[in-house]
Amino acid sequence: MNVHFTKMQGAGNDFAVIDATRAPLALNRTQLQRLGDRRFGVGCDQILVIEASPAAGVDFRYRIFNGSSGEEVEHCGNGARCFVRYVVDKGLTAKRSIRVQTVNKLLELHLQDDGRVTVDMGAPIFTLADLPFVAAGLQPRLQQGFELWRLALPSGPCEVAVLSMGNPHAVQFVADVDAAPVLRVGPEVEHDAHFPRRVNAGFVQIISRSEIKLRVYERSAGETLACGTGACAAVVAGIRLGLLDEAVEVHARGGDLKIEWAGRSAGLDAPVRMTGPAQTVFEGEIEL
Amino acid sequence: MNVHFTKMQGAGNDFAVIDATRAPLALNRTQLQRLGDRRFGVGCDQILVIEASPAAGVDFRYRIFNGSSGEEVEHCGNGARCFVRYVVDKGLTAKRSIRVQTVNKLLELHLQDDGRVTVDMGAPIFTLADLPFVAAGLQPRLQQGFELWRLALPSGPCEVAVLSMGNPHAVQFVADVDAAPVLRVGPEVEHDAHFPRRVNAGFVQIISRSEIKLRVYERSAGETLACGTGACAAVVAGIRLGLLDEAVEVHARGGDLKIEWAGRSAGLDAPVRMTGPAQTVFEGEIEL
Repeated sequence: MNVHFTKMQGAGNDFAVIDATRAPLALNRTQLQRLGDRRFGVGCDQILVIEASPAAGVDFRYRIFNGSSGEEVEHCGNGARCFVRYVVDKGLTAKRSIRVQTVNKLLELHLQDDGRVTVDMGAPIFTLADLPFVAAGLQPRLQQGFELWRLALPSGPCEVAVLSMGNPHAVQFVADVDAAPVLRVGPEVEHDAHFPRRVNAGFVQIISRSEIKLRVYERSAGETLACGTGACAAVVAGIRLGLLDEAVEVHARGGDLKIEWAGRSAGLDAPVRMTGPAQTVFEGEIEL
Repeated sequence: MNVHFTKMQGAGNDFAVIDATRAPLALNRTQLQRLGDRRFGVGCDQILVIEASPAAGVDFRYRIFNGSSGEEVEHCGNGARCFVRYVVDKGLTAKRSIRVQTVNKLLELHLQDDGRVTVDMGAPIFTLADLPFVAAGLQPRLQQGFELWRLALPSGPCEVAVLSMGNPHAVQFVADVDAAPVLRVGPEVEHDAHFPRRVNAGFVQIISRSEIKLRVYERSAGETLACGTGACAAVVAGIRLGLLDEAVEVHARGGDLKIEWAGRSAGLDAPVRMTGPAQTVFEGEIEL
């Protein structure tokens, strides 16, 4: 089967995007893994398949598959931005606000005048059992009413804020993120016994109340260039701890993201909004 | 500038191949690095640019550029195989034996009936000063008249055979190549002071007199899936030490290569022949 794809990237997170709006496309796991392989295939973090709308009032549906395992995964902020740029650039829609059904959410996405895309990432989740985070044996330290948890890692003690953006995050604040031992401490946080399903480890350096630098050690993936939910979690934690204002520029290794959360003024269930870039890298055709 | 390319791979070593036979193509270093980048570009170990023949009796010319640095590099066996498959598959020649001028060599390459390609890799070089290898302070142990050198590495002593295939190799024989500490010992060998321009470190497991398993820690690149000159060096060292016959199947992580060398019967200046696979992965177009 000959498949046309568009290679795209958003803040260094990369995607093979395939248009299945006109004809259904069923790729098996071997074909998806082949697409994801960086030497024997196209090479990408994830494969994004765009399908026709399943319902009235919804413009499209998309599905995301992990490029290594071929498994279907949940909504990803960087992928959502690439989706918007794709359907607009390819003329599949004339709208600038687009409603799309993902495997677990109905999203509304907005293309900005500067070409960046804004994604509603949903409300943060603070219920510890939902991360899950098992606090047994730990006493939190409160800062502005939000908990900081002291983990006893092999390399020493480490204080983290924990929350979920659909996936769990443990966020720590450091003086210099470039010098932070992310590759040593990241896996220790990921595998700490208080996180029975493991956790993404964020390392945040505060530049000002509206600007941070971020590195994320992702669960199962290691350090990545950009993690959309990690940026949201870092900013939400910083706002709850009184360190950040409601709109923050995040500098990640693969690019910049703007994160907005009105949690202090509008309540903790306010949605997090993420704005960032999405670019076409090249067009291709592969025989699968 | 819109550039059409073909992504190819040979034993896991991957290339963006560009046809410049009909119109000259001058890519600057930024464009070459963009092609090489696995997230913001096509992603490949090397870029291979095919040009029209510079002289009578020569079919083509090709140039190879490093995908990370954009620098022009010397002849590479895996790239030569992809070159042959490309010019035959694209109908640029009807021949099966093809003469090509590279930056430093005139090569004759052969497409086999099974689709594999045979490359003459030239004669091995045993003159220590040409690697360069500075033996000062070391006493070799002779096996079948060939020298084994005992290096004092930080992790312990290590015995290697040394030779050049245009680039320098230090080959060691191990009981189990999968268990060998390649990532720890490889950089120690690479940076050993007896190699003033550093060295590629090969780890060889003998399966039989005609079959080996190989891992290579490449100078400046780390462990790679397949190193053509590393396979040649491993087999030549094994033949000189009396461990291997004149035709050997090499199992590398990215695929299999057949190496032939008649050094014991025809003399040490006999050329090494390498036969292996080359495949098209996908076709693409990128705006540079």
